Amino acid sequence: MSRFIHENFLLQNPSAIRLYHEYAAETPIIDYHCHLPPREIAEDRRFENLTQIWLVGDHYKWRAMRAAGVDEKYITGDASDWEKFAAWASVVPKTLRNPLYHWTHLELNRPFGINDRLLNPDTAKSIWDECNAKLREPEFSARGIMRQMNVKLVCTTDDPADSLEWHKKIAADQSFDIQVLPTFRPDKATQFGSPLENTNDYVTETTISAYNKYIDKLGDAAGIEIKTFDDLLEALKKRHDYFHEHGCRLSDHGFRGFHYDADDAIFHGKVNDHFFQVRNGEENTRYSPDDVIIYRCAKLDAEKNWTMQLHIGAIRNNNTRMYEKLGADAGFDSIYDNRYVADYLSSFLDHLDRENKLPKTIVYNLNPSENEILASMIGNFQDGKTPGKMQFGSAWWFLDQKDGMEKQLNCLSNLGLLSQFVGMLTDSRSFLSYTRHEYFRRILCNLLGAEIESGLLPNDFEMTGGMVRDICYNNAKQYFGFKIK
Amino acid sequence: MSRFIHENFLLQNPSAIRLYHEYAAETPIIDYHCHLPPREIAEDRRFENLTQIWLVGDHYKWRAMRAAGVDEKYITGDASDWEKFAAWASVVPKTLRNPLYHWTHLELNRPFGINDRLLNPDTAKSIWDECNAKLREPEFSARGIMRQMNVKLVCTTDDPADSLEWHKKIAADQSFDIQVLPTFRPDKATQFGSPLENTNDYVTETTISAYNKYIDKLGDAAGIEIKTFDDLLEALKKRHDYFHEHGCRLSDHGFRGFHYDADDAIFHGKVNDHFFQVRNGEENTRYSPDDVIIYRCAKLDAEKNWTMQLHIGAIRNNNTRMYEKLGADAGFDSIYDNRYVADYLSSFLDHLDRENKLPKTIVYNLNPSENEILASMIGNFQDGKTPGKMQFGSAWWFLDQKDGMEKQLNCLSNLGLLSQFVGMLTDSRSFLSYTRHEYFRRILCNLLGAEIESGLLPNDFEMTGGMVRDICYNNAKQYFGFKIK
Amino acid sequence: MSRFIHENFLLQNPSAIRLYHEYAAETPIIDYHCHLPPREIAEDRRFENLTQIWLVGDHYKWRAMRAAGVDEKYITGDASDWEKFAAWASVVPKTLRNPLYHWTHLELNRPFGINDRLLNPDTAKSIWDECNAKLREPEFSARGIMRQMNVKLVCTTDDPADSLEWHKKIAADQSFDIQVLPTFRPDKATQFGSPLENTNDYVTETTISAYNKYIDKLGDAAGIEIKTFDDLLEALKKRHDYFHEHGCRLSDHGFRGFHYDADDAIFHGKVNDHFFQVRNGEENTRYSPDDVIIYRCAKLDAEKNWTMQLHIGAIRNNNTRMYEKLGADAGFDSIYDNRYVADYLSSFLDHLDRENKLPKTIVYNLNPSENEILASMIGNFQDGKTPGKMQFGSAWWFLDQKDGMEKQLNCLSNLGLLSQFVGMLTDSRSFLSYTRHEYFRRILCNLLGAEIESGLLPNDFEMTGGMVRDICYNNAKQYFGFKIK
Repeated sequence: MSRFIHENFLLQNPSAIRLYHEYAAETPIIDYHCHLPPREIAEDRRFENLTQIWLVGDHYKWRAMRAAGVDEKYITGDASDWEKFAAWASVVPKTLRNPLYHWTHLELNRPFGINDRLLNPDTAKSIWDECNAKLREPEFSARGIMRQMNVKLVCTTDDPADSLEWHKKIAADQSFDIQVLPTFRPDKATQFGSPLENTNDYVTETTISAYNKYIDKLGDAAGIEIKTFDDLLEALKKRHDYFHEHGCRLSDHGFRGFHYDADDAIFHGKVNDHFFQVRNGEENTRYSPDDVIIYRCAKLDAEKNWTMQLHIGAIRNNNTRMYEKLGADAGFDSIYDNRYVADYLSSFLDHLDRENKLPKTIVYNLNPSENEILASMIGNFQDGKTPGKMQFGSAWWFLDQKDGMEKQLNCLSNLGLLSQFVGMLTDSRSFLSYTRHEYFRRILCNLLGAEIESGLLPNDFEMTGGMVRDICYNNAKQYFGFKIK
Repeated sequence: MSRFIHENFLLQNPSAIRLYHEYAAETPIIDYHCHLPPREIAEDRRFENLTQIWLVGDHYKWRAMRAAGVDEKYITGDASDWEKFAAWASVVPKTLRNPLYHWTHLELNRPFGINDRLLNPDTAKSIWDECNAKLREPEFSARGIMRQMNVKLVCTTDDPADSLEWHKKIAADQSFDIQVLPTFRPDKATQFGSPLENTNDYVTETTISAYNKYIDKLGDAAGIEIKTFDDLLEALKKRHDYFHEHGCRLSDHGFRGFHYDADDAIFHGKVNDHFFQVRNGEENTRYSPDDVIIYRCAKLDAEKNWTMQLHIGAIRNNNTRMYEKLGADAGFDSIYDNRYVADYLSSFLDHLDRENKLPKTIVYNLNPSENEILASMIGNFQDGKTPGKMQFGSAWWFLDQKDGMEKQLNCLSNLGLLSQFVGMLTDSRSFLSYTRHEYFRRILCNLLGAEIESGLLPNDFEMTGGMVRDICYNNAKQYFGFKIK
Repeated sequence: MSRFIHENFLLQNPSAIRLYHEYAAETPIIDYHCHLPPREIAEDRRFENLTQIWLVGDHYKWRAMRAAGVDEKYITGDASDWEKFAAWASVVPKTLRNPLYHWTHLELNRPFGINDRLLNPDTAKSIWDECNAKLREPEFSARGIMRQMNVKLVCTTDDPADSLEWHKKIAADQSFDIQVLPTFRPDKATQFGSPLENTNDYVTETTISAYNKYIDKLGDAAGIEIKTFDDLLEALKKRHDYFHEHGCRLSDHGFRGFHYDADDAIFHGKVNDHFFQVRNGEENTRYSPDDVIIYRCAKLDAEKNWTMQLHIGAIRNNNTRMYEKLGADAGFDSIYDNRYVADYLSSFLDHLDRENKLPKTIVYNLNPSENEILASMIGNFQDGKTPGKMQFGSAWWFLDQKDGMEKQLNCLSNLGLLSQFVGMLTDSRSFLSYTRHEYFRRILCNLLGAEIESGLLPNDFEMTGGMVRDICYNNAKQYFGFKIK
């Protein structure tokens, strides 16, 4: 059997091969949105075994294992690391056509160099041993992997109450030349604390108390006692300033859907009252101020020329039984159907624009049925000043696969300008996810190559190859204003 | 001109050809969801002519004929059987690219063996004569066709009030070795009787009286006088038990959309009152208890390890004038846009799961824009015990065509595990629909073959071919727990 | 480098090439829906330069320029025509994969005959000079271009208050044998005047006063003083009669979405009151009577055997700042997400059908996620009398590109009869848009050709080629009842 992962994997025509190898393959990585723990970079973590670096915390794999009938013991339970890996290896052949099958073998290929075997129960032991041996080498520490993968800059995702101590340590370390910048993600301040609220649309005493606990922590970080909504905004502004001083240039918000439909003044009025109730621990407060806080944060972003990221459309923690057992981010989230998204997003962006406070914005969408609505809506707010100011973000989460990426690329191409796209990111908690960039680049080049072959694009490699290089690297550098060392 | 239907029809590459002929073609059929009349199997019906077996009751063809401008006389009116067939033959060339064009010629090929001609006005007479002659042979009786098509087991669709007399006769007949099992479909009990209610969202006296008449009948079958909602549930339980004794292992519910959004207790309270009003024949009762009854039936299913099927998303009887003339199921139904489907389905499944009463479930979707929402939502309830417990059902009704099937297969592959899929069913009222399985298998093999050719799947026929065989047969057998003779 | 636009552009297989050149290429154009100004045809306008004929008024290009970071001065501002053209030329290479890239080069090829260069900053001057020279020749006047492009008939889009003076002049001109017919589009009468209302869902005094001003104008045209809603309907009927006398056979309605959900009587009652308030200039009137007026207009259409066109799903003027600067139709519109569209459209069509007043209807959809809902819904109202009475209209606006057209063609094919399709239209304000028909035809033939090659369609060119010719010309001629000279 020929190798599954080889140099022309996914490149199905000569033009695709040429585009990828001449314009994409060697381009460095700017990973402007990820969830890597900065501490592990600062401490240059070494991983004990493949389960520690690959399975712990990967709820994509957990979902697949549950669907294949694997007992929770071997997923998040008390089985040994080897047993968990063996369980995963037994599921891999059952993931055929799922992106996990591609990701798995791309990651075994890079950085581990394993491409002569497919992972399955027969090969599990040899792969386990070989990878674990590699993990003991310095090239396979957190920083080692980042260097191997040609990473120039990453933006982590951080809470406004975070001290950024690890970021400071990394920045102070002259021996490490990959930039690691924080991202301002105030979800805990915009939502009523518990992810349960996200799902069931009611607020329990617990979630209010969890929310208040967080607000106290945020106040401590900002040096402000937060009693009113204005106090909250002031605290966020102080932290926003602090993050800016430490190199932050992006914010991020993850939420189920907009319900912004009135002008800011009305919202503000409601928010004040409700926030006061919440701070007093009153139950039955059904109002969540997320839109208004996001709106205010957007203004802060605009003032500092940051980029605002909106991750719209996940419905989280749908399985209460498992949420109570494992908490959030355990593989029980799915795709939401937004309602009135055109109206709400229109109002939200328009109100900011009227105040001249609309920042550079990236909208990430999770429901592919809303792709066209979102991609065409943001086109209404391109301002003729910043090229590609309003971005239709790359395929996200459940859509981060060939089909989803192609839909995103096609939708953006048809309804906007692909040439201005800032490209891919990993959105990952794992140091092994950098091949996600390779995956994206191969898919992009394959799409463009096929169109050169069929005459849909001119046979001009300079033009199309230039666009490839821009999407893979130059656009992000330019758009975010990064200074790459 | 070369033959249209030939052994490699739809198989567009060598890997597809190999997969189909080596792994799929000879696999027997388990048709776990259809609408065949059990009486016709029990009596081994012989069909007088092609119109009787092919056009009577086929509202897919009727719709196409109306769209082509054929007078109703030749569709459901008093034209002769030959005239109706001739009218259909004249429309067939106008159905190019509609699935009817493929289905028609697949069915002429099997079981009739006609593949040297396309159906059109020129060939109508010869095809009519040839098929009618075949229909007089014993291989073309109801049972004869089922045997020819290598069917091992079918599940019909039955009302809880049904006596199952024909199922009993079939089961008692030692000469017939194809299993014919009932399915428990309580739509008439969950909805206010008339399909009109489905469409126009109001309840007329007629529909309440029709509903009450049905409830009386159900009560008779169960030996219970149904006055309260609890009586209704008790009657359904008794019939559920009775169906189980006669081999039933699946339930089925067809409804426009969920509106389940609160906990069971609240629903139950409302339902009691409303049900009482309905039983007293009060008009202006706008509440339909369908969700709650389905919820209760789901618990019965879980207790007996049945599989619950949910057919979501048809809006029925849109054309009042034609409904008054022809009744339901006459070709005036279409695709609905569900609202809040993520919220409702999440609550519905989560509440069952919290009670440890979530049965194996198959969700069939009619609106392809909701594919991703549904396919990702059910993934939240895979339990690590039953492989593929939550199934994203095969493409249904309007989507039962190449494009719709490919979308379903791709969505399931990307958001779940294709390898666990229980595969195809006919959902048909006709004994000529078994080539729908062939159609599905060819499309599945073509999809997988193309990915082997392009390197998206490993070049490993044992692995991919094994998955094909599982999807075509083994998974269904295993999942439903059928004992195939 | 080989030519980008050549005789087989988009035709990717031999069958496609044969279908296009033998059945589609030479077929004349019936452009049954466009926005050409009849005055420019009557006066046979000559265009000063390429900017005048190509960029002025083309908000598709404006959007792309803004997204690429071009200052508004070079889009709608006071830059010179050459500067604007140069700015556009600099953006063209950045539109790779956007339909603008194809449209641009198709239009340079026909009628200008330029296909040896791609438009970019290097070629801008030579193309500017060459095209401007051509524009001075008589073959490049308004009528000259129409003749060059083999146009037989166009339907413009006209306000009911319009005197149709230019249509009369064209009709009276014996020297011009292309028919130019009006279309009855009463949007200003159905909606509260200002497009702002469209977006923000409230009615300001200004919009009411603008609406009243228009209603006065309409009354003048009809010779009726409009006080009540019945007066309004009477005025519309008089204008409908007048348009019919001048050859009009189509109506058209553009609106964001249906909210028709009750019977006409109830609506009529509400409308009377609200209309009275509006005519008295009362603020805070939130009711917009559009559905009822469209319903009434539909009856007029049915009585005269016209075709009703419904353009559903644009959300307009989302950017208030730019709307205040540039007005409507300036590139700040996008795709809407309709709610309850299945319910509303079902009620609307069903009520008309019950009154036996459902006209031939074309539904144009802007949100591809609703394609299947709409295409299947209209199938419920095919009447077996007029072939293809209910039409799923060709891909519109943002969807008027290869991907969108293929989705429309596939959806129509799967859920209806492609063979009955009345085909393409330009929907354009520009005399240079006729290659949109060529684009459509190439895409159609490519799709069908690919299916012949892969065996999805029979290898029968007479049958499939005949369908191509019908879709390109015969169906429209027959369906609308045009007498082509």
